[in-house]
Amino acid sequence: MKIRKRNLRSINNLSPFKLIALFYLFAVTVSSLLLAMPVAHQPGVELSFIDILFTAVSAVSVTGLSVITVADTFSTTGIILLAFVLQLGGIGVMSIGTAIWMLLGKKIGLKERRLIMTDQNQTSFQGVVRLIRQIIGVVLLIEFVGFVTLGTYFLQYYPPEEAYLHGFFGTISAMTNGGFDITGASLIPYKDDYFVQFINMLLIVAGAIGFPVLIEVKEYLFKNTTPGENKRFSLFAKLTSFTFLMLVIFGMVMIIFFEFNHFFADKNWHEILFYALFQSVTTRSGGLATMDVGQLTEQTKLFLSSLMFIGASPSSVGGGIRTTTFALLVIFMLTYARGQTRVRVFRREIHDDDLIKAVVVTIMAVMICFVAVVALTITEPYTIGDLLFEVTSAFGTVGLSTGITPGLSTFAKFVLMSLMFIGRIGILTFLFTLKQEKKKTGKYHYPKERIIIG
Amino acid sequence: MKIRKRNLRSINNLSPFKLIALFYLFAVTVSSLLLAMPVAHQPGVELSFIDILFTAVSAVSVTGLSVITVADTFSTTGIILLAFVLQLGGIGVMSIGTAIWMLLGKKIGLKERRLIMTDQNQTSFQGVVRLIRQIIGVVLLIEFVGFVTLGTYFLQYYPPEEAYLHGFFGTISAMTNGGFDITGASLIPYKDDYFVQFINMLLIVAGAIGFPVLIEVKEYLFKNTTPGENKRFSLFAKLTSFTFLMLVIFGMVMIIFFEFNHFFADKNWHEILFYALFQSVTTRSGGLATMDVGQLTEQTKLFLSSLMFIGASPSSVGGGIRTTTFALLVIFMLTYARGQTRVRVFRREIHDDDLIKAVVVTIMAVMICFVAVVALTITEPYTIGDLLFEVTSAFGTVGLSTGITPGLSTFAKFVLMSLMFIGRIGILTFLFTLKQEKKKTGKYHYPKERIIIG
Ligand SMILES: [K+]
Ligand SMILES: [K+]
Repeated sequence: MKIRKRNLRSINNLSPFKLIALFYLFAVTVSSLLLAMPVAHQPGVELSFIDILFTAVSAVSVTGLSVITVADTFSTTGIILLAFVLQLGGIGVMSIGTAIWMLLGKKIGLKERRLIMTDQNQTSFQGVVRLIRQIIGVVLLIEFVGFVTLGTYFLQYYPPEEAYLHGFFGTISAMTNGGFDITGASLIPYKDDYFVQFINMLLIVAGAIGFPVLIEVKEYLFKNTTPGENKRFSLFAKLTSFTFLMLVIFGMVMIIFFEFNHFFADKNWHEILFYALFQSVTTRSGGLATMDVGQLTEQTKLFLSSLMFIGASPSSVGGGIRTTTFALLVIFMLTYARGQTRVRVFRREIHDDDLIKAVVVTIMAVMICFVAVVALTITEPYTIGDLLFEVTSAFGTVGLSTGITPGLSTFAKFVLMSLMFIGRIGILTFLFTLKQEKKKTGKYHYPKERIIIG
Repeated sequence: MKIRKRNLRSINNLSPFKLIALFYLFAVTVSSLLLAMPVAHQPGVELSFIDILFTAVSAVSVTGLSVITVADTFSTTGIILLAFVLQLGGIGVMSIGTAIWMLLGKKIGLKERRLIMTDQNQTSFQGVVRLIRQIIGVVLLIEFVGFVTLGTYFLQYYPPEEAYLHGFFGTISAMTNGGFDITGASLIPYKDDYFVQFINMLLIVAGAIGFPVLIEVKEYLFKNTTPGENKRFSLFAKLTSFTFLMLVIFGMVMIIFFEFNHFFADKNWHEILFYALFQSVTTRSGGLATMDVGQLTEQTKLFLSSLMFIGASPSSVGGGIRTTTFALLVIFMLTYARGQTRVRVFRREIHDDDLIKAVVVTIMAVMICFVAVVALTITEPYTIGDLLFEVTSAFGTVGLSTGITPGLSTFAKFVLMSLMFIGRIGILTFLFTLKQEKKKTGKYHYPKERIIIG
């Protein structure tokens, strides 16, 4: 298969990919140091090196898998530091990286700009710097609204200082899809409070739907159109939002189907609706939960694993193979099965390069997750279902767990940290950071010869 | 992605694909009737409809998953009928189908010939009929040698009549990769008899390596070369044999690694070698076993599941995604990761069409097997590891089992029968048989637009 020149160029321009990986490692190191400070801990708490590292990786990758209970481990200072780390990770390796280049006065060249480019129609090369400012602005704005709303609302549950701490941490954890909690039991204490759940879902979706979509929505709402100019959403925004919505609805329906005679047996219709909806939304990347995932049936856990494997939108706070990758795969399969020649969606044709990327990402991801599960079965005493759940949760940077995380071996913690790293920076970036040197492209062609498939 | 005209043509020429599926259904019906005859059963044995159907599907697809014990269920007549059904399935839907068209005097048109075409360099359009004769000839020859060798060798274990019955059934079950046994415990009774194991491995490989390879080997060995003519193996033969060999070696090494402190803990080096080698060979498609698979560790079972998912070579008696599909995927990933533009192997370039097929087959297969496992977790009380093993064993038409097959529900039996069907006729054929009508290809192009992947 010819891999077009465009791909080749990005493959050979390694530095930005390496920079992102390096930034990620830098962020993890700084976060580990911050979270290791005695002032960050509750009196008498001592954390092992591996647990601090795991928490830092989980927080920087905004996964939320945790070997510790935040409320029992960290002091208020520690909680605020953790929120800062989530923010660092949430706004993202890409935007933070670009912002740092900006601050350092480094001229943003074509390569770096391409990295955070989302859609050529919507964002010109010139607008990249503006885009980063917009990302940070939009995130802070949403978080401020969330903080005030949740903090004030929580006054009915907690004394003022605690209420606003819960509002502050809860908003950041939801908006960055951090998935950490200071309640000690995720959102289970609010399992009957639909308002808190609703706000949390809004924040999770805002984080997971992808920054480009947020920016486009903002521009759609607030930008004055000059006469003759058409306001339109990009293909990317439409495809990712549609896929996101479909996954949420499909997820909700299947959760209800799988749990109807189990977890939902004694629940009424609005409880079922909110449980299923929240659980479906949170598997995109959120990681907060209103129910104990460990109590769900094997089929629900398997199904949720596949949802977490798909993950969130690109250029969002989430991981996984990404919604767009999944959407392209499905569209590609349907097109092929129908015997049509061109892969289309929303009256646009899809580039071959993008389909190739989608395929490579998916197959690599399946292989990586499979190898991870096999490796974990060697060292861990848990079922394959629970291990697959943990692996896809890490790869999708979701952070849900059936409860086995604190009991994992050091080996397993390193496996999960690697998955969170790969899930967060993305398979393609990961592949490119692995490459050490430019490889020569063969200059002569061999004769072609047919092969039987399937 | 443009799907080339060549694909399009095969997609739109549905009849041959439908014919193969219809032939398969016809073979299953006839086999069910044969196996349902009272004369085929041991005295007093009554089989339910679903168990006869399951046995017929398993035999026609040469899978070997079994809800019954052959020796306890079938009379000598029944065993010979079962061998006949395995032969029918083993020589294959394709060749048998073509042979029937031949016998019926139907002119073999281009479409039908394409179906059993394996390599354009090696087999001309004119040689298709000859190829089928060769396939049947080679199979019968190998089986005759196997029958005489094993039957005579078995004289040390059984009285003459029984020895040759074991030789007869064992040879057919191994050569067709049928996986059924009349010992009641697969090849476990011969776990210390390396000669029997060796002959069985040769037969299994002969069946699973693909008929085109057998024919090429035969021509290589026996054909006189005219001066100036080069004897060479086709790309297909080289790729599939190399992949087959690599999978066997890799499988053996990993099985030793995973079981070293478990099943192999009290075994000496040649026991370990033969157990691991036989187990690795049999997961290609054979289904016979020298050990109780249910005793293996979770990691070995998961790993074997992945080997069974890959399956055997195309145009062989085996199923799965096929060795060539897996090889193309790996080569494609490596090429992409290296940033090279052309996918090559053995000094030949791979066609885009073939890569697209490999990708479609793999992704479809992953989805189908995943959905099957989720479905089975709903109705069956077994672990996900055991269910995945059963599912991949059916899809790869391998027939190994951790021992849960007889305990499965009717629903699960239907799921496994569907998987055996799909695995045997191949995902692409399956896709094409699902299509009801020709779809129009869109005649106008939409503008292209970029999308972010991963
Ligand atoms: K998360
Ligand atoms: K078999």
